[in-house]
Amino acid sequence: MSDDKGYSGNALDCLKKNNVKVGDSIKITSELTYSGILMPRYESGDDKHLVLKLGSGYNVGIDVDEIQKIQVVSSSEVKPKQSQEKKDDPTLPKILLLSTGGTIASKVDYRTGAVTPALSASDLNEAVPELGKIANIDAEVLFSEYSENLQPEHWTEIAEKLDSLANSDYKGILIAHGTDTMHYTSSFLSFALAGFPIPVALVGSQRSSDRPSSDAAPNLIAASKFLVESNTNGIFLVMHHNDNDQTVACHAGTRVRKNHTSKRGAFETIGGDPAFTVFEGKVTKNIQDEFFKDAKYNPRIKIDTKVALVKYHPGYEPKLIENLIQTGCRAIIFEGTGLGHVGRTMYDVIKKAKENDLFLGMTSQCIDGRVRMTVYESGRDLLELGITPLENMTPETSLVKAMWALGNSKNTDEMKSLMLENIASEF
Amino acid sequence: MSDDKGYSGNALDCLKKNNVKVGDSIKITSELTYSGILMPRYESGDDKHLVLKLGSGYNVGIDVDEIQKIQVVSSSEVKPKQSQEKKDDPTLPKILLLSTGGTIASKVDYRTGAVTPALSASDLNEAVPELGKIANIDAEVLFSEYSENLQPEHWTEIAEKLDSLANSDYKGILIAHGTDTMHYTSSFLSFALAGFPIPVALVGSQRSSDRPSSDAAPNLIAASKFLVESNTNGIFLVMHHNDNDQTVACHAGTRVRKNHTSKRGAFETIGGDPAFTVFEGKVTKNIQDEFFKDAKYNPRIKIDTKVALVKYHPGYEPKLIENLIQTGCRAIIFEGTGLGHVGRTMYDVIKKAKENDLFLGMTSQCIDGRVRMTVYESGRDLLELGITPLENMTPETSLVKAMWALGNSKNTDEMKSLMLENIASEF
Repeated sequence: MSDDKGYSGNALDCLKKNNVKVGDSIKITSELTYSGILMPRYESGDDKHLVLKLGSGYNVGIDVDEIQKIQVVSSSEVKPKQSQEKKDDPTLPKILLLSTGGTIASKVDYRTGAVTPALSASDLNEAVPELGKIANIDAEVLFSEYSENLQPEHWTEIAEKLDSLANSDYKGILIAHGTDTMHYTSSFLSFALAGFPIPVALVGSQRSSDRPSSDAAPNLIAASKFLVESNTNGIFLVMHHNDNDQTVACHAGTRVRKNHTSKRGAFETIGGDPAFTVFEGKVTKNIQDEFFKDAKYNPRIKIDTKVALVKYHPGYEPKLIENLIQTGCRAIIFEGTGLGHVGRTMYDVIKKAKENDLFLGMTSQCIDGRVRMTVYESGRDLLELGITPLENMTPETSLVKAMWALGNSKNTDEMKSLMLENIASEF
Repeated sequence: MSDDKGYSGNALDCLKKNNVKVGDSIKITSELTYSGILMPRYESGDDKHLVLKLGSGYNVGIDVDEIQKIQVVSSSEVKPKQSQEKKDDPTLPKILLLSTGGTIASKVDYRTGAVTPALSASDLNEAVPELGKIANIDAEVLFSEYSENLQPEHWTEIAEKLDSLANSDYKGILIAHGTDTMHYTSSFLSFALAGFPIPVALVGSQRSSDRPSSDAAPNLIAASKFLVESNTNGIFLVMHHNDNDQTVACHAGTRVRKNHTSKRGAFETIGGDPAFTVFEGKVTKNIQDEFFKDAKYNPRIKIDTKVALVKYHPGYEPKLIENLIQTGCRAIIFEGTGLGHVGRTMYDVIKKAKENDLFLGMTSQCIDGRVRMTVYESGRDLLELGITPLENMTPETSLVKAMWALGNSKNTDEMKSLMLENIASEF
């Protein structure tokens, strides 16, 4: 929130006087002597205490008035490491790791509050030496953001970077990514880079790498194995499969969703098995060969975000749809109830949206299953009003696809036919 | 959509001439002879064909110009049945069945398009004779709506009806309800009627009762068993547990969600087992005795719907939050990403909402798990901006609780403390 990492008043003065920065390893002599890392203060607190993370992992607050001495044991300032001479094994394939941020790339942040991309090639070789036996890995930092802060412009930046690598000699590409919106990114890349000639694995971790239960290293290792051995192409999301064993799942980029806030096996392929799994280093394919029907690489990287996601519920205020129309929204993806319904209180504004030539698509907030709008009267009414059922596409994939289709079509009819075309196994 | 059930032009003339109504069982002499039920025409079609549902279950379209004769075999007009003399067994407990509509109450609709509440006491005894061995069942039709058309005013109507029965001699109450929004209704009733002295089971069916795979009868039987034998109280949602066996699950009204569009075991208790299960007529309890901490009945049936549910995603237009404020919205429930995040593009409008004294609550679109906003910088930022984390409450339950809390509090502070109080095992 602020440049001084949350410290103010007396506490900030004390830090300045002693030339100490958040993240420094320090030794404080007070009534007792404490050694640890100076933590940032994010939650509103007083200006009288420093917070130290001890070696035990616990945090303590120390009254500044009682501090007799502060020694900096080691500074947090990252010194540019000498790039270690990588010893490439010429018999191994090449992989590129693009880092975009997230927990998997933010070991230092977890300790100190400072986000730094830790995944240079040499850092990686140090942290996960097993990777060097699978492939020769080049690393490049695209940006460094937690994925809740990623926006569609980041998606297009990643897509353009990948597009520039379509004819490279990489066997595959790893993308280190925060988990919060990883499935939105994988959906966009799947549409924008349909038929991408080599496999791309978005990989993240639910637990940061300084925790014993971290899934960072196993996910990276399995993703690299997958890229090298799967003999497939296109966009995948590679994460721990569940909590019971050491299986890692490789989900099709358009069929996957984060279904748990914290557990390692948070991601699931909706309505089916993951496309591939990796267990004890062995890559198993669970899909048919015709999975990627569009073999020809067809990059279409434009996007238009004038799309809204509307989750219907009892008591939904129809006026909000009018607001969307007035705001210049060009498409609405509904998360309807059950098989794809909204209450009849919505019919009038849906008519209005249709008169304004918006694309209106229907998905289900049940998430699993598929919309079927011919079964009940409500669904048939909505079909008559011009709503397009989006089969078994998840609401999130439908939203991203609508942004992509709006950006890559000239009018609503063209957009609708893109929405109904199976571009990247999203149906 | 229209009084003539979708027929127009020549087809409508033909029906009028022959005095035939949708739903009638008819025999048509044309090139061939067809017997079946006249179906409504919901999807736009020509005006030259009648649609008949044959005994085989298939529909055929018959050209009106080629029809030589139409005979009405039996009319669809429902004749009020003579209420069969119910033979109550004085050794059995009494249950009341309130019907609100939905698939479970709409057997006739599935065939003909006309919604009629089929669940009078005598219909029920005819349709599910097993019920008479469990309890003496009185039946009453409250209204007849598919649940996608239910609104908060229906919730309060049900709640007031139940409140009037709090001191009745019923052992429990069944509520027949459409499945689309059943979990929203069960949430509202749980808050509005906290500590209700007898058990209430909302029960629906995913497949209508004229299909061989229908779950209507087993769900009604298990729900009745549950009401009679569970020795509990409060609001539950009783539905088929999964597709593999004959278990029926009794979910706490605030912890349940429809997670599949069509399968019978569509409802799940999020983050745990169902409170009770019924297998082969045996009721098993899976919860602790302290589950209902609020033993005293405390009805608070007011509601205020000025609450919005905002599902955050990359590319979310912050201006939409300003629109909500201008529309008079008093509370926003966010469906954030991961542990409860939104992008920093939202911070300014969140500040504005806070300045306008809106209640701002955070849930996760992951659905399973719980929000934890102290782990990452984004979460801590949002806490500082005044967002209230809503633990492991589902987004839907949080939304309904916010409408209820807004209706039953004098100001935002009072509303916030209601939101954080565990009223009906929602946490």
